[in-house]
Amino acid sequence: MKKQTLIYNGKSKQIFATESQNFVIMTYKDDETAYFGVKKSVIPNKGMLNSKISSLIFQYLERNGIHTHYVEQLDNNEQLCRRATTLPLEFIARNVIAGSLSRRLDIEEGTVPEQPIYEICLKSDALRDPMINGYHVVALGLAKEETLTQILKIMQQINSLLTELLKKSHIDLIDFKVEFGFDSEGNLMLIDEISPDTARFWDSESHEHLDRDLFSRDLGDVEIAYKEVLSRLENVLQNG
Amino acid sequence: MKKQTLIYNGKSKQIFATESQNFVIMTYKDDETAYFGVKKSVIPNKGMLNSKISSLIFQYLERNGIHTHYVEQLDNNEQLCRRATTLPLEFIARNVIAGSLSRRLDIEEGTVPEQPIYEICLKSDALRDPMINGYHVVALGLAKEETLTQILKIMQQINSLLTELLKKSHIDLIDFKVEFGFDSEGNLMLIDEISPDTARFWDSESHEHLDRDLFSRDLGDVEIAYKEVLSRLENVLQNG
Repeated sequence: MKKQTLIYNGKSKQIFATESQNFVIMTYKDDETAYFGVKKSVIPNKGMLNSKISSLIFQYLERNGIHTHYVEQLDNNEQLCRRATTLPLEFIARNVIAGSLSRRLDIEEGTVPEQPIYEICLKSDALRDPMINGYHVVALGLAKEETLTQILKIMQQINSLLTELLKKSHIDLIDFKVEFGFDSEGNLMLIDEISPDTARFWDSESHEHLDRDLFSRDLGDVEIAYKEVLSRLENVLQNG
Repeated sequence: MKKQTLIYNGKSKQIFATESQNFVIMTYKDDETAYFGVKKSVIPNKGMLNSKISSLIFQYLERNGIHTHYVEQLDNNEQLCRRATTLPLEFIARNVIAGSLSRRLDIEEGTVPEQPIYEICLKSDALRDPMINGYHVVALGLAKEETLTQILKIMQQINSLLTELLKKSHIDLIDFKVEFGFDSEGNLMLIDEISPDTARFWDSESHEHLDRDLFSRDLGDVEIAYKEVLSRLENVLQNG
């Protein structure tokens, strides 16, 4: 399939229509942004690296029973995906306290809660993705209660599957953010991406960041770290 | 019973120990504050009015099966209460969008959601009472899951009971904030207060504020409005 009209131009990805109503082509950009676009840069090969990492992860999740929008990797930074009717929500899983939650509740980064924490945010750059809860989602008509229940169950499955996969790569899954939508038949599916841009990956031994905090906090070379993540995942998935 | 040591000195109330381990005396202040203490004033008779309003409401809730800390009104602005082991949480019920939620999600004040919204905040002036969700509560050890489930069920009961009572007083219950604790036998109970300082009461016909927004937004005379709320509640509860 070929790229046709641009239907979405985001901070880190573009989505193009194809000749089929049911499929889109998703292109990963080299642009990196943080703090709602306040900090910007271009990181060579980032689009390609995230596209490949996310492809590996989505294929792994599909093999383990999670319905996703992923169809196939087309080019270095392009994927063919099922077209989705999206929900205006972001879902976050947190296994270790870090980032915004650490600041918001004044809990030291690295603290391990008694069990994973799941959060829901309203997708809105203008409002800075405010955190909401399940009551807001249902009462404000953002999703049906049964959809929300289903998503929270899938979030737990994804969290377990990813934690296990990354552990084999000597990476601790600190947190991750995903989105959900419906395919053309109305089935709920995981969309967007899972990459070091949308998750926190810490090296299991050194606790060094292998994620976007390298950029947002000026902690080191993003390209080298993302290459390392891709290489570790390829090793585990080829040997697994 | 008599007031002994001061054990809590809050922005709007003081709590004193008594000669009994199981009871405290709660005193309502005339001090009014808004925006986490940035705006301050003293409103004559406010302590007395809120104490009487909250007493009427807590007695009404007790009669309708809600276990509360309320024992009896002692003086104009003093109540005898069961001593509580408190949870560091605030629970909010919202029937109409107003205040912080209106600003946070950019929804017009007065919008009616499809069903009531319940929110949980961590009680912390320093952190400005950040909103959290049930996962945070349990994972951070702030309350047990069964306690949380019980509280959310009681919140719905309180919301229904209060909405009904206030409707008879020609007042719309927009939202309210409460706290919970455990009595000496470990039973969960409603504590704190329910008054125009901790709830939004709008006149059912004129939609005028009969609550603390009169002070925080400089909309009118607080004392007159609170007297009006007390008088309407007394009328309904005497005739009911």
